[in-house]
Amino acid sequence: MTPSMTAAVVPALLLLLLAAFSPELAAAASSSRRTTHQRYFPAGLASLHQQRAASSGGRYAAADNGTAKPFTAHYFPQELDHFTFTPNSSRVFSHKYLLNETFWRRKPTAGPLFVYTGNEGDIEWFTTNTGFMFDIAPQFGALLVFIEHRFYGESQPFGNDSSQSPDTLGYLTSTQALADFAVLITSLKQNLSAVDAPVVVFGGSYGGMLASWFRLKYPHVAMGALASSAPILQFDDISSWSGFDDTVTQDFKMCKIIDSFPAGADVVEKAFAAASLYYNYTGDQKCFQVEGGDDPHGLSGWGWQACTEMVMPMAVSNESMFPPFGFSYEERSKGCLANYGVRPRMHWITTEYGGHKIDKVLKRFGSNIIFSNGMRDPWSRGGVLKNISSSIIALVTEKGAHHLDFRSATKDDPDWVVEQRRQEIEIIHGWIDQYNKDIAQM
Amino acid sequence: MTPSMTAAVVPALLLLLLAAFSPELAAAASSSRRTTHQRYFPAGLASLHQQRAASSGGRYAAADNGTAKPFTAHYFPQELDHFTFTPNSSRVFSHKYLLNETFWRRKPTAGPLFVYTGNEGDIEWFTTNTGFMFDIAPQFGALLVFIEHRFYGESQPFGNDSSQSPDTLGYLTSTQALADFAVLITSLKQNLSAVDAPVVVFGGSYGGMLASWFRLKYPHVAMGALASSAPILQFDDISSWSGFDDTVTQDFKMCKIIDSFPAGADVVEKAFAAASLYYNYTGDQKCFQVEGGDDPHGLSGWGWQACTEMVMPMAVSNESMFPPFGFSYEERSKGCLANYGVRPRMHWITTEYGGHKIDKVLKRFGSNIIFSNGMRDPWSRGGVLKNISSSIIALVTEKGAHHLDFRSATKDDPDWVVEQRRQEIEIIHGWIDQYNKDIAQM
Repeated sequence: MTPSMTAAVVPALLLLLLAAFSPELAAAASSSRRTTHQRYFPAGLASLHQQRAASSGGRYAAADNGTAKPFTAHYFPQELDHFTFTPNSSRVFSHKYLLNETFWRRKPTAGPLFVYTGNEGDIEWFTTNTGFMFDIAPQFGALLVFIEHRFYGESQPFGNDSSQSPDTLGYLTSTQALADFAVLITSLKQNLSAVDAPVVVFGGSYGGMLASWFRLKYPHVAMGALASSAPILQFDDISSWSGFDDTVTQDFKMCKIIDSFPAGADVVEKAFAAASLYYNYTGDQKCFQVEGGDDPHGLSGWGWQACTEMVMPMAVSNESMFPPFGFSYEERSKGCLANYGVRPRMHWITTEYGGHKIDKVLKRFGSNIIFSNGMRDPWSRGGVLKNISSSIIALVTEKGAHHLDFRSATKDDPDWVVEQRRQEIEIIHGWIDQYNKDIAQM
Repeated sequence: MTPSMTAAVVPALLLLLLAAFSPELAAAASSSRRTTHQRYFPAGLASLHQQRAASSGGRYAAADNGTAKPFTAHYFPQELDHFTFTPNSSRVFSHKYLLNETFWRRKPTAGPLFVYTGNEGDIEWFTTNTGFMFDIAPQFGALLVFIEHRFYGESQPFGNDSSQSPDTLGYLTSTQALADFAVLITSLKQNLSAVDAPVVVFGGSYGGMLASWFRLKYPHVAMGALASSAPILQFDDISSWSGFDDTVTQDFKMCKIIDSFPAGADVVEKAFAAASLYYNYTGDQKCFQVEGGDDPHGLSGWGWQACTEMVMPMAVSNESMFPPFGFSYEERSKGCLANYGVRPRMHWITTEYGGHKIDKVLKRFGSNIIFSNGMRDPWSRGGVLKNISSSIIALVTEKGAHHLDFRSATKDDPDWVVEQRRQEIEIIHGWIDQYNKDIAQM
């Protein structure tokens, strides 16, 4: 399971018991049944998405019929390996990104670039599920850019052979992805004659982790980051290994479907009933396929990432609604060697990006990051939940789910998500005003 | 020529006209004749170095005879490639570092780690020329750590074959070196049971560039950096391409030996006379070997670095004492392909580390960096010469030379270098006091 997969709690937990974590997997699974905040956006739903966007003030480029998309696709010649100069390193692949220029203000000063740092799936999926960026672009005069993550979607460095072996998959790492973003954004701004325009990066889930890390590693490229539901602390022993499961169990205890079962009822039976709310609304399914199912957004690369860098320990405690299980570094290593021919670097993420004592490390370092979380999202327990400084801010909602704030606004949104988005907008306005003042000073 | 090679201006300029720049080359060339601030420290000079250190208050571990060194050598199993998981990436090499534990305070709280981020030569050379760290270690109760840069000294990832071809040299990059430092420091602190001890990184010239970049990229590993004579702005068009030469020419106009020549005298004759002050004190040399000379500190790797990442444009203007020449990206690229079979990534350094508008980028981002420079050092023109924020500080001396502040204190030191060092010490004390207060807060 990847961090981005968790809009619905039930399928996430079922998968948690069976597979490596990818934040988007549960969300992907749940999205096919959702109507108010659908997480993906096949061509047939484009008109609905546009109608909703129009009702909230958004107008999309080329949105003149039901199948048009609110963006144009582009491809950048990206180098394979930014951190060596071995002969293979300069191999170039077509790196996909999407643009929406409808709202971009060019004069008197260029409006900001709002850049989505893509995560573990095709970029169109994330783009069409981040209606928030489309909703707020008009008031900022922003250019919207959505950059695909290497080895996902069409951005396959070795074409159809990209996932063949460690010789090719070895180049699928977060650090290379961040450098891809830096190179692409820098080049794009030069081509647009907008080198001084502010850049704010946005990301949800693993994309949110990338957004916050990007602001910290590339402050000269991005002047701010909004990281929604980003579990950057779900590494080593920083957060409780059972935090994810504890949240799920807690969520279920609120759950009327579960409560209606008699005491002592089978937990799988309870979970099936709850999952049916999303997956089996018509009641015609007797069981769910949770392994080997469809992967329409190409999420499979997360298995490799979980076996190399993204070692996010998770366990289920005795208090859980699920049978307890532990996490073992040794078992993970064995499994990864068997499945991928690679051993994880267990503590690399915290060496490269930090995380331990993040409140003290960033108290006097860095600025302009929002970490937004909803406490009903099990990934929130690996997130930043308290303000670190006056400009590294945590926005936490008690009832929020996995990057709910990034969905398009609707008339049915509860007040607390409306307020969370309002605060995000206000803070970003503040960053940009300050940036423009700083740039104007000689 | 590498940035670190410039303690003496004359040989630097001669080399400038002939070779790729390495900051340490001129310093290396000049060091053999210097007596008050010698830049390297062969075994036979150890006793002299210790005497001087003792006279300035320093006492070195194991310094009980003329050949003992004030450090012990250690080797860390370092992975070849931190940023991919290709099969070759996990190859391990012996990464050399030096320790001096004489002054380290262990209780009640661990004293700081002062870590030198090694540059383009063997680490013993830099260690023995950074007497400043030994001088100040007692008052801080500091552990001294000097880490060699990969592909220099004994830290050869492929042994004797390390410089054979781009297949091996390709792993010689600044980003890999910074990650080496992060991995080694993190591991060392764990092994010493001192994970909460503050780390301050020190570096001169290219080592200073690495120190400042390390603080910016790894704030969770190092809480401060002293970057001496670090030309981090000598890239792209940030600094004048003729700044280096302008300074040299200016330095010569102060030079009595040059002035004593009649008008119209040959410039090479003048340069020879000035260089003889350092290289030919006895007057028995008729010419100098400036190409293909000895390389006792293994500086040759800089040629590769200048042909890959370290593209530092330099030119000589019409006002120079030297024949004018320009810088051409195209010519550099051709030369590098011919000599090394590699093409430089011309703007990679500024993409990865920034530099453009650094005052605005870091005004509200980052903290705890000192950039020290002396204006007689030609590399100063590519340095940070003005304060950026209340804790990103420029300490500039009018008469200073290339990282003079890092040499051992002597009774002959001019007041301004004494004052520069005093300010550095005061600022670092402030960082550590603040850090300890922050750590103590729950």
